[in-house]
Amino acid sequence: MNPKIKWLRDKVRLSNLDGIIISNPVNIRYLTGINAEGTLLITRKENFYITDSRYIEYAKSVITINDEIIVCNMKDISKEDYENFFLFCDNVGFEEDYITYLTYKQYMQKYKINNFEETEGIIEKQRIIKDEEEIGYIEKACQITDLCFNYLTNFIKIGMTEKEVAFEIEKFFIQNGAEGVSFETIVASGKNSSKPHAIPSDKKIELGDPITIDMGCKYNGYCSDMTRTIFAGYIPVKIREIYDLVLKNQKQTLKEMKDGANIKVISRNVENDFKLHNYDLIHSLGHGVGLDIHERPFINSKNDNLLKENMIVTNEPGIYVPGVYGVRIEDTVLITKSGCINLTKSDKNYIIVDEQDVTKYKDIIS
Amino acid sequence: MNPKIKWLRDKVRLSNLDGIIISNPVNIRYLTGINAEGTLLITRKENFYITDSRYIEYAKSVITINDEIIVCNMKDISKEDYENFFLFCDNVGFEEDYITYLTYKQYMQKYKINNFEETEGIIEKQRIIKDEEEIGYIEKACQITDLCFNYLTNFIKIGMTEKEVAFEIEKFFIQNGAEGVSFETIVASGKNSSKPHAIPSDKKIELGDPITIDMGCKYNGYCSDMTRTIFAGYIPVKIREIYDLVLKNQKQTLKEMKDGANIKVISRNVENDFKLHNYDLIHSLGHGVGLDIHERPFINSKNDNLLKENMIVTNEPGIYVPGVYGVRIEDTVLITKSGCINLTKSDKNYIIVDEQDVTKYKDIIS
Repeated sequence: MNPKIKWLRDKVRLSNLDGIIISNPVNIRYLTGINAEGTLLITRKENFYITDSRYIEYAKSVITINDEIIVCNMKDISKEDYENFFLFCDNVGFEEDYITYLTYKQYMQKYKINNFEETEGIIEKQRIIKDEEEIGYIEKACQITDLCFNYLTNFIKIGMTEKEVAFEIEKFFIQNGAEGVSFETIVASGKNSSKPHAIPSDKKIELGDPITIDMGCKYNGYCSDMTRTIFAGYIPVKIREIYDLVLKNQKQTLKEMKDGANIKVISRNVENDFKLHNYDLIHSLGHGVGLDIHERPFINSKNDNLLKENMIVTNEPGIYVPGVYGVRIEDTVLITKSGCINLTKSDKNYIIVDEQDVTKYKDIIS
Repeated sequence: MNPKIKWLRDKVRLSNLDGIIISNPVNIRYLTGINAEGTLLITRKENFYITDSRYIEYAKSVITINDEIIVCNMKDISKEDYENFFLFCDNVGFEEDYITYLTYKQYMQKYKINNFEETEGIIEKQRIIKDEEEIGYIEKACQITDLCFNYLTNFIKIGMTEKEVAFEIEKFFIQNGAEGVSFETIVASGKNSSKPHAIPSDKKIELGDPITIDMGCKYNGYCSDMTRTIFAGYIPVKIREIYDLVLKNQKQTLKEMKDGANIKVISRNVENDFKLHNYDLIHSLGHGVGLDIHERPFINSKNDNLLKENMIVTNEPGIYVPGVYGVRIEDTVLITKSGCINLTKSDKNYIIVDEQDVTKYKDIIS
């Protein structure tokens, strides 16, 4: 049997469940490799993947005999079949943080379930620790991201729009072996950089703009995530203070991230250092990265858990001065026994694109 | 007050609700224009939009005084504030088909709600009928899609990969004023065209391949959706039978689609004609299109409702011979009193790209 399904069957038994319904397609992809729309049922004796006519051929092509998963077309499943999947089962698990309230009610009826049990992220918790294959995919996604950043430092010119740059990033990813972006690329220039979640606009990049680029791609379903703030033409003196403060904290966090480190403490350290300088960390310090771009563990000062070997997380402090500008620096890192390994390796020192000689304009370089 | 919010307040009152919590970001965009992550509360007296620090600046920039919506940062809302939003309210509505079971439980606790009422797509049902502005946006998205298709008929060459073509489509959309794709573009050539939901692969387009292209873009949040099956080099004789059958049914459906037409009957007609020729319609005949690429009304033989003026829906019959090939032809259409208007206007006759003279190869043209 597929080892991940075997793990889940054991876990289900240990949790005193007689079965589980997996609805989250990302969890199904993790367990089976199938990237489609459908439902995975782990019943007392067997494993079923139920999908519709659109995906039947594909799902059957992914599943091998060794997986021990029976692929079914929902149009061939009768009312009675649904009721028989969990016949004589007392407790059946479901993903309460994925299915809607309506689906919950429909499952109860359709499968005639007596006791439908919340499973508290049973699979998501397993996904936190990456295996060798998963680490390899994320490393590959991070390598493509680094290549892209290197390309951008020559590509970006004053006068280009944010959208043009965002588009070039997506094109580079696809042309260099990625499946596509792992989230909507952020290219935020000038005062747009003060919005942590800005959408690329038709604004042109201007002389002296900071440009925050938050980007990532997918390789075999697995994500990368990296942010750099770079500068168009020259670096305004004023912004150096927050750039240096963000970078200092990003580097300090890298030093602190290792197996056994407390997530809350790491996050507090950045929050406190920012406060000392009259700034706030207005978003999380980081998050897990895997098949989802944002997954467990969430790196913030409310999370009292410890980092563990083979977690892959981001480290992304940022400071934003509303309506003026912002700086964020982010790496995707692999936690090890003795420390952490930066999987994104792009330069974090001041980077100027389309550099201009502005010494003659005394007034603008402040 | 914003007229859509006013409509919702009236609707809430008529439904004997004392308030409603809107969580679906697409519904929030429909009601307010805000395209972010947050929650909209319609309480007895006021309207609140609750978001986090990432979106506060943006949300405030979208909302005007006339909207009468109070924008709040969730970090400033206390436990007591949450409990006061619906104080002395008996029945509060929620979106049971959007929020997860877990969120449902959390809302109950956080807002201390006595009676949390399902609202059965209250806003989605309103979104079915498009207003003038919405129709204009979808028309524009469809125009860009037609331009793209026209461009593709010259661009596509034998030897290109499906991924290359899919990428070119996305690039064209962005360069021609769209925000991006409205769903993941399908470019399925040769036997891949037998999978209705194929993902663009590294497969090269070969001589004689049918190529099913299912694509759409977004304009101001609103979607277009169009499919054409075209041919590389020449048209294999064998495929003409299903092409002609699909096209005949697509055109017949266009004739039947108008205000007052029964959705079930229209769908049955296609199913029956396919069956007469020993084929099946293995997916829905169509779906509504708006801020979501798939929204109400769903056009299939289970839906006994009538089409109404100013609905915008797709008409997309398809036939798939597993492992061999498939044909799908789809338009986005606007329902009118007297009939319907095709918003996607691309040619539906046989289209050959990169045409080759194959008369000398008698064996391949069968």
